[in-house]
Amino acid sequence: MTQLTRRRLFATAAAAGAATALAPPWLRPAAAAAPAAKGTGVYRYKMGDYEIVQLMDGARTFPIPDKFVVNVSKDKAIEAAAAAYMPEGKVTIPFSPMIVNTGKKLVAIDTGNGLGAYAASKGVVGQARGNMEAAGIDPAKVDIVVISHFHGDHVGGLKNANGSLAFPNAEIKVPAVEWAFWTDESNASKANGFNAKQFANVKKMLDGLADKVTKYEADNEVAPGITAIYTPGHTPGHMSFAVVSGSKRILVQSDVTNIPSMFLRNPDWHVIFDNDPKQAAATRHKIYDMAAAEKMTVSGYHFPYPCVGHVEKAGKGYRLVPVAWDPNSN
Amino acid sequence: MTQLTRRRLFATAAAAGAATALAPPWLRPAAAAAPAAKGTGVYRYKMGDYEIVQLMDGARTFPIPDKFVVNVSKDKAIEAAAAAYMPEGKVTIPFSPMIVNTGKKLVAIDTGNGLGAYAASKGVVGQARGNMEAAGIDPAKVDIVVISHFHGDHVGGLKNANGSLAFPNAEIKVPAVEWAFWTDESNASKANGFNAKQFANVKKMLDGLADKVTKYEADNEVAPGITAIYTPGHTPGHMSFAVVSGSKRILVQSDVTNIPSMFLRNPDWHVIFDNDPKQAAATRHKIYDMAAAEKMTVSGYHFPYPCVGHVEKAGKGYRLVPVAWDPNSN
Repeated sequence: MTQLTRRRLFATAAAAGAATALAPPWLRPAAAAAPAAKGTGVYRYKMGDYEIVQLMDGARTFPIPDKFVVNVSKDKAIEAAAAAYMPEGKVTIPFSPMIVNTGKKLVAIDTGNGLGAYAASKGVVGQARGNMEAAGIDPAKVDIVVISHFHGDHVGGLKNANGSLAFPNAEIKVPAVEWAFWTDESNASKANGFNAKQFANVKKMLDGLADKVTKYEADNEVAPGITAIYTPGHTPGHMSFAVVSGSKRILVQSDVTNIPSMFLRNPDWHVIFDNDPKQAAATRHKIYDMAAAEKMTVSGYHFPYPCVGHVEKAGKGYRLVPVAWDPNSN
Repeated sequence: MTQLTRRRLFATAAAAGAATALAPPWLRPAAAAAPAAKGTGVYRYKMGDYEIVQLMDGARTFPIPDKFVVNVSKDKAIEAAAAAYMPEGKVTIPFSPMIVNTGKKLVAIDTGNGLGAYAASKGVVGQARGNMEAAGIDPAKVDIVVISHFHGDHVGGLKNANGSLAFPNAEIKVPAVEWAFWTDESNASKANGFNAKQFANVKKMLDGLADKVTKYEADNEVAPGITAIYTPGHTPGHMSFAVVSGSKRILVQSDVTNIPSMFLRNPDWHVIFDNDPKQAAATRHKIYDMAAAEKMTVSGYHFPYPCVGHVEKAGKGYRLVPVAWDPNSN
């Protein structure tokens, strides 16, 4: 048996690469049987008596803009992304809504980017619906859709591209503070940049729903065992959720932090998407100090898939330790 | 809007828990629409021109046995598991085979625990097949099954419970050294404990396949762009794989380490499953020194799902940084 050496490992890898490269694309046969079609990411696990399905909605990878992190240099932002092994000079932001089956109710927490209504994504995002199908979940059977906040990547899946309701039989629950902020014309008229785009999308996505949605306040159950927690800053009425079943619980942190490798590590960095950056940073410290002290299981909409872990203090910030999930129990 | 305080967060969580606990199980309505049936874990992403599907086969969670880590105290092992937030005194080991669609060939790397032939799991493991179905992959269309080594959680899915071939049309490629070791009656007669169980399973699983399997050596392509790398210790003929497409590559490390939170952090710890513990530890250092220096993308059969990340040096060991995968590109 040959000895493993560094030279050898890379020699064989290079040779394999060269062999592949030698065959011009038009000579390569079509895929034997593409395992495409049926979803890109589904992860299902038990939490107490509940079942949770984490749905990949896709991800966006893009060159880091100048003011992606408003209060630090672009170089520092690029360095942080590189430390998380992202493509050079780029950042990857994944999106992942959650389905909770409480036994009594089928509940969706946020909806993903949707198919076209929010952003023409060419399939890069908007995959949550296909992944629901792959998981055998019928959107018509969802009882409650709970919205954490009104950004397009969370409400974009409320309607189909033709304007019909994506969850036709569900009660739609929205934070009362979000509704008030995003439907206020004077707020809309003052907005620019990222926020202006969000106001336009909210108008499109929630048009005609004023009498249909249920507005909820923090500290109330929005579904059996699911309690809203006020975590403002990212948006004025941004909500997280405590999901509790028996002795088990999970903190669904929504967008308290965007991608952990940048903004959980550096909770005082102001991501361009935060509406009130100082309040958002204060919320991060409060939530993660608690989560770390209590060793809470935390799920995040922009966490690396399947989006669940524990938060630990690390230097001036925090780090995420992904869970060793057993899909059968927790 | 109420202020978020620690007292409040836990008060609401506790209240929600209490409310759920109040309803006796027989009064709880049946699940509205269980999102069960269709798989527990599927993750699909592009790698160059290839497509990779990571299949969750399930996980086992069990009390840490006395000699789980042969050369350290049980207390230290329990401490390491606790640091990874595993259930108290227990360890969770997940299993995850991989499908590679090269465009030319549909390739399975390892097969999971299978349904009953290797271990009566009651569904705790053996989920890979259901997840293949959820991903729209027909086992009959798999062209090549590459086996990394002969442990039951890797070869257990070669046959169905009734003894028929699970991948009826696939060429089955096995490491020549593994075949020689595990089919040698004198080795079998000397084995006890974990290894004795493996010899018995190999007999059952590979019975009648002597003329059907293709034995392969290290440093050869086992499928287009997939090169075997000799990484012995865990078993005598244990193989890893370099999967290369264009300028992209991934190191499929098989069982060079078992769960990273224990044995990547502590590469010199001897997990009970390693056949030659010293050789296994030496292989770990070689492979991870390379992977860290080259910032290679590494996939592991027992890594936290979806099983892919980068390895960094950390103290006397290493740590795994999960990738920020974009399912659309890498």
